[in-house]
Amino acid sequence: MPPLTASITDAPTPDTVAELLGRVRASAPLVHNITNTVVTGFTANALLALGAAPAMVDIVGEAGLFARVAGGLLVNLGTPTPEQRGAIAEAVAGAREAGTPWVLDPVAIGALPIRTQLAAELVSQHPTAVRGNPSEVLALAGAGSGGRGVESADSAASARDAAVALARRYGTVVAVSGEEDLVTDGSSVVWVSGGDALLTKVTGGGCALGAIVAAFLAVRVELSVLDALVAAHVSYGVAAERAAPRAARPGTFARQQLDPRHI
Amino acid sequence: MPPLTASITDAPTPDTVAELLGRVRASAPLVHNITNTVVTGFTANALLALGAAPAMVDIVGEAGLFARVAGGLLVNLGTPTPEQRGAIAEAVAGAREAGTPWVLDPVAIGALPIRTQLAAELVSQHPTAVRGNPSEVLALAGAGSGGRGVESADSAASARDAAVALARRYGTVVAVSGEEDLVTDGSSVVWVSGGDALLTKVTGGGCALGAIVAAFLAVRVELSVLDALVAAHVSYGVAAERAAPRAARPGTFARQQLDPRHI
Amino acid sequence: MPPLTASITDAPTPDTVAELLGRVRASAPLVHNITNTVVTGFTANALLALGAAPAMVDIVGEAGLFARVAGGLLVNLGTPTPEQRGAIAEAVAGAREAGTPWVLDPVAIGALPIRTQLAAELVSQHPTAVRGNPSEVLALAGAGSGGRGVESADSAASARDAAVALARRYGTVVAVSGEEDLVTDGSSVVWVSGGDALLTKVTGGGCALGAIVAAFLAVRVELSVLDALVAAHVSYGVAAERAAPRAARPGTFARQQLDPRHI
Repeated sequence: MPPLTASITDAPTPDTVAELLGRVRASAPLVHNITNTVVTGFTANALLALGAAPAMVDIVGEAGLFARVAGGLLVNLGTPTPEQRGAIAEAVAGAREAGTPWVLDPVAIGALPIRTQLAAELVSQHPTAVRGNPSEVLALAGAGSGGRGVESADSAASARDAAVALARRYGTVVAVSGEEDLVTDGSSVVWVSGGDALLTKVTGGGCALGAIVAAFLAVRVELSVLDALVAAHVSYGVAAERAAPRAARPGTFARQQLDPRHI
Repeated sequence: MPPLTASITDAPTPDTVAELLGRVRASAPLVHNITNTVVTGFTANALLALGAAPAMVDIVGEAGLFARVAGGLLVNLGTPTPEQRGAIAEAVAGAREAGTPWVLDPVAIGALPIRTQLAAELVSQHPTAVRGNPSEVLALAGAGSGGRGVESADSAASARDAAVALARRYGTVVAVSGEEDLVTDGSSVVWVSGGDALLTKVTGGGCALGAIVAAFLAVRVELSVLDALVAAHVSYGVAAERAAPRAARPGTFARQQLDPRHI
Repeated sequence: MPPLTASITDAPTPDTVAELLGRVRASAPLVHNITNTVVTGFTANALLALGAAPAMVDIVGEAGLFARVAGGLLVNLGTPTPEQRGAIAEAVAGAREAGTPWVLDPVAIGALPIRTQLAAELVSQHPTAVRGNPSEVLALAGAGSGGRGVESADSAASARDAAVALARRYGTVVAVSGEEDLVTDGSSVVWVSGGDALLTKVTGGGCALGAIVAAFLAVRVELSVLDALVAAHVSYGVAAERAAPRAARPGTFARQQLDPRHI
């Protein structure tokens, strides 16, 4: 593997992060979500708090059309029923034809066969971005044995080489969530610190981040996919940091993080 | 189109609104919800806060039976899977046979073909009430090109003629949500002001209102459908107004609005 | 029916309750949930607040495998789509083969035919525990006419004989929720007081308790199933009691109860 450039050089500046966040707020991009039944409401509220416009269109016969007009698409494999699997196939085809950026979140792959196979097929269709925890990214790269459902037993650093390899192989940008988050386009690796441990105590934290990545991709225009992913992760982490002191416990934290002043 | 009567004359009095709200609290009507996966929890909690009894019965083989014994039925087309579409057909047939009032919420119709066709079939079966945003009501009347998913680009006033026409054509009562809400039975048009802009920053605000309309219809007895719809909208708007000062941001607003003292 | 032993003798001591709660926090058992779409998010957050690790795996082809590796399984019949029914069959078979404890929550059975038949089939497969409201337990024992959806018109005491009979017939432990909760293994009946009336004003209170029962069963080791169920109910009730004074209304109560310091 050739040497990677230093992350400090390739990370977007704070001005770029602010520019992208400003674009999301100004243009309210339409984010098409195909996601799991546990986090639908939280994801929609997180997008609304960010300033984006959420829509959940996950049936065959509609998902393909909608992906063509949406600003960004999230494909989250948390509860992939047969109907959703059909809708995902349509939506990804529609997104690719129309040039809609799309994000793959390979929830809990590794041990669970249907979603593992599905994620392998999807990543070969070159998603604009992949977002997952270390276990999921390791499994997607064929390097891991899978985690325990949505939890990850590994650190983001442990999935660094797998993320870089995935990014190179499929021409995508990969984000790995952990105590520090990692974002790589296969050439550069950017580390994003921040966030709050309470994020791991509320369901849907990672899933909502996938939707927020789709919102940032919808407005990146001339900026790089790497910039958009880093900006999404920084914005989300800052929201968590601002929410945390107002909410020492997960019940209040989930609520506080949905306040736009924290984003 | 014949002239409409003045809204001030035909609106229910505050006493009528209070009477209907009192009946909901006293009798806890059973509200049968077939609704989308994004808002199921919020809708159930909104009904509980109101004093009604929510149930989500959306499978084939059960929905038809349940609609016969429920006090009111909500048919919300937000995520209409094939299973839900079968359940809706059963439930509407059951509601019509048993005289159960039912509400159609044609979520995001216009651009999305399956739900647009389904809504057209359903409105022709004479729902007791239709509730939607301006884009949806325009699309249902065949007059609009559809909005961006659940959002509406139009004002309630822009859908006034479409709402009146729908109400007349199908013998239903139509409510259109906006900065001011509009309710019409085809003869009278009543405007309901109130609510709070935060309602647009929390997912499920409109969807929960559809369920609350069903709860008010369940207890109207000798009062008109128009009265019941106006009372539901006034009660919901007052709850939002009372919640808003206690919750300057959407995360807290959603929570506050579920407090019965605000309804 | 032979006489029952006195509950005071057979109830676990406070030390046993604390021991079991400590084990949940220390080992973070993986709880496999097949549950209804209304309460998925609340259930996952309740498990996280408790210290357990939630996963929702409810599709055919994955549920059976996952039940083999999970620490405990919840089968909740709230919205039993055909896909979930297939997943339940797989999961129960997997749990029985692997010795994974599993909990049956027969939501709203009695009046609704598909789930009533399904619950009858499932209870005959000897779930480790059954948890329901009085109407549901009466219906499962063939003694009741069913409630109004998720609500129960009966007191826990009214379902006492039905619960004991079920426990004896199927070799299971049955918990009945009410103002006071009842737990019986067919020999002893233990009453658990506590909790808060606000629990009935937030959707998912009972459903989340079923998942928490599964978490306690995952760590019981040498302790009895009865002990685990009582410990789960006591812990949940104490969380509700601690949350209530900080949250006089249901919107805030739901949030407060998700704070681990209350559990």
